Amino acid sequence: MTQTSHEDLIARTVDPIRARGGPDASATSAASARQDTLTKPPGSLGRLEEIAVRIAGITGMPRPRLDQRLIVVAAGDHGVAARGVSAYPQEVTAQMVANFLQGGAAINVLAGHAGARVRVVDAGVASETPEDPALLRLRLGPGTADISEGPAMSRADAAASVAAGIALLQSERAANGGAGVDIVGCGEMGIGNSTSAAAIIAAATARPPRAVTGRGTGVDDERFEHKIRAVEQALQVNRPDPSDGLDLLRTVGGYEVGVLAGIYLAAAAEGIPAVVDGLISGAAALVAVAIAPEAREALIASHRSAEPGHSAMLEHLRLEPMLDFGMRLGEGSGAALGISLCIAACRVLDEMATFDEAGVSDSDEAVEPEP
Amino acid sequence: MTQTSHEDLIARTVDPIRARGGPDASATSAASARQDTLTKPPGSLGRLEEIAVRIAGITGMPRPRLDQRLIVVAAGDHGVAARGVSAYPQEVTAQMVANFLQGGAAINVLAGHAGARVRVVDAGVASETPEDPALLRLRLGPGTADISEGPAMSRADAAASVAAGIALLQSERAANGGAGVDIVGCGEMGIGNSTSAAAIIAAATARPPRAVTGRGTGVDDERFEHKIRAVEQALQVNRPDPSDGLDLLRTVGGYEVGVLAGIYLAAAAEGIPAVVDGLISGAAALVAVAIAPEAREALIASHRSAEPGHSAMLEHLRLEPMLDFGMRLGEGSGAALGISLCIAACRVLDEMATFDEAGVSDSDEAVEPEP
Repeated sequence: MTQTSHEDLIARTVDPIRARGGPDASATSAASARQDTLTKPPGSLGRLEEIAVRIAGITGMPRPRLDQRLIVVAAGDHGVAARGVSAYPQEVTAQMVANFLQGGAAINVLAGHAGARVRVVDAGVASETPEDPALLRLRLGPGTADISEGPAMSRADAAASVAAGIALLQSERAANGGAGVDIVGCGEMGIGNSTSAAAIIAAATARPPRAVTGRGTGVDDERFEHKIRAVEQALQVNRPDPSDGLDLLRTVGGYEVGVLAGIYLAAAAEGIPAVVDGLISGAAALVAVAIAPEAREALIASHRSAEPGHSAMLEHLRLEPMLDFGMRLGEGSGAALGISLCIAACRVLDEMATFDEAGVSDSDEAVEPEP
Repeated sequence: MTQTSHEDLIARTVDPIRARGGPDASATSAASARQDTLTKPPGSLGRLEEIAVRIAGITGMPRPRLDQRLIVVAAGDHGVAARGVSAYPQEVTAQMVANFLQGGAAINVLAGHAGARVRVVDAGVASETPEDPALLRLRLGPGTADISEGPAMSRADAAASVAAGIALLQSERAANGGAGVDIVGCGEMGIGNSTSAAAIIAAATARPPRAVTGRGTGVDDERFEHKIRAVEQALQVNRPDPSDGLDLLRTVGGYEVGVLAGIYLAAAAEGIPAVVDGLISGAAALVAVAIAPEAREALIASHRSAEPGHSAMLEHLRLEPMLDFGMRLGEGSGAALGISLCIAACRVLDEMATFDEAGVSDSDEAVEPEP
């Protein structure tokens, strides 16, 4: 496809997101009303009730089922890695892609726990990745250019990465007669991508680089200061436009970030809950929301990462995470745990007996307090 | 069994808990060392790593598997319910026992989600409960006596309830050739039991009743003030000895609380992680720890309840919950979610590939930062 056709696909995806204009009111109120008929005191399952009602609003279904669960793990390399911003060498990106395909990574285990399938994407890995039917090899570039010296990629490549994410979710959605994805989680892998994510978050939330840059894979003090300088330089050199998602991607983004932004947009367009994972997944959510602010309505935050920029992202998007486990791995690891909690929430709403069905007395028959 | 034999069983259970003297150091350090060889930056899965290491210490297994999961839901009635401390009538206890047996309650759904079997116990329900092989009918009394007027039960019944919990876990443990329970969650049901739990927590943590009494199933202001007075009176009339678990039970406890205290003790004795649920489950943990302080080592807190007394319990037992969902249902609902997270944590530790196995470069090969 050409740049124009990529931008067209993005525009065609944004239209239904805008048309939706927020959660489905009828499904939301039906789900909420059902919660109060189930054999438990109203509201006594707290956030578990809220999550199910929220998913009813996203999907338009009063009793949503999350039987088909997808986790997309998009991998990409980053030119800025050459500056020594990570504790690991760049080859690790491709090595971890192989690990995902072999099932040995954290996301494989945690997706298995959540009953989710994992779709691995080589969005733009520098080293060779395996020819494997389980791997979508986009290879939009051999990693991005060094963002501390200039733009990460062309605007055409930014549009291509987002369009690829949209196309991927549409194709996964088409599986099983169109019921292929009930919930999607967004994960990633890429040496150096926490530097790119910090730059996106600083630009999108208008915060200083030092406030949103963390230690990523675990860099020492020297590398940490170096990483902050790289983020500062990336912003100075590129001056990303925070109101233009494709410009955020072009200037300081990454190919895998673009793919995930596309996943979020397609999910919002199709009424599929999209579970945000950690720092980079969160930066991709900011890109998606910069492209279509109403896409926020489909987002569910799984956890609060140990990375400081992640909290800035959550606050900016007004998302309340389910878990606060001090995790900072990425890959979709937190999203997988979040999907499991969403499944539990929706099963409660769908499967519990009502007071009438179970023949349990409601609260209006209680003993009166003594005078 | 006689009172003496019940107290003997408790004493025989406490001995190995004391002998254990804390987590297994060898399994703890083996689990911890393995975490650092897995294909992720060390510590990057945060609490998920800690939970798995903790369970290794409890079980003595460097790579614990949690294949057999049990949730005990103990039901009991409370004489204090006659004072109008609950938003629901007392018949609801027996009706909910029937609901548990039919599979319509929240705990059935959430246990199903965690792949856990549910064992329902009539510890002392006032109304008739069904003859059902799935129900352990202890029926130690027709509910307790009103704790605001005198002791809940005799010391013999307190010992009998704890001994019954111990015997229940031992018998479940014996299933599958002695591998019947890898993790146990403690849930309960009983109209009025949040009043009993508040009294136990006030006595065990030396806090004023108003600070640890909540709205339980959701009482209005009038009932709430009434409930606080009932807790205050229960403590004044009974003067429970906080250093004597059986005295806590006898004076202000409940039959279901005693059964759960027995489950915790048996779990600690056998090296089985025991997952604490909400307010009443937490009060039972305080009773168990009053009987054997070292039993604390086997406890895992699943969530922080919306009930204020629950946070007092967590602080007193120095437990950090996994979830903060504003839940206040009981039944083991939070414990089921907690078990699912424990399973995820242990699967990561057991199933992930190491750097060597996956051929992934470790951090010592990173690019040096530029000067």
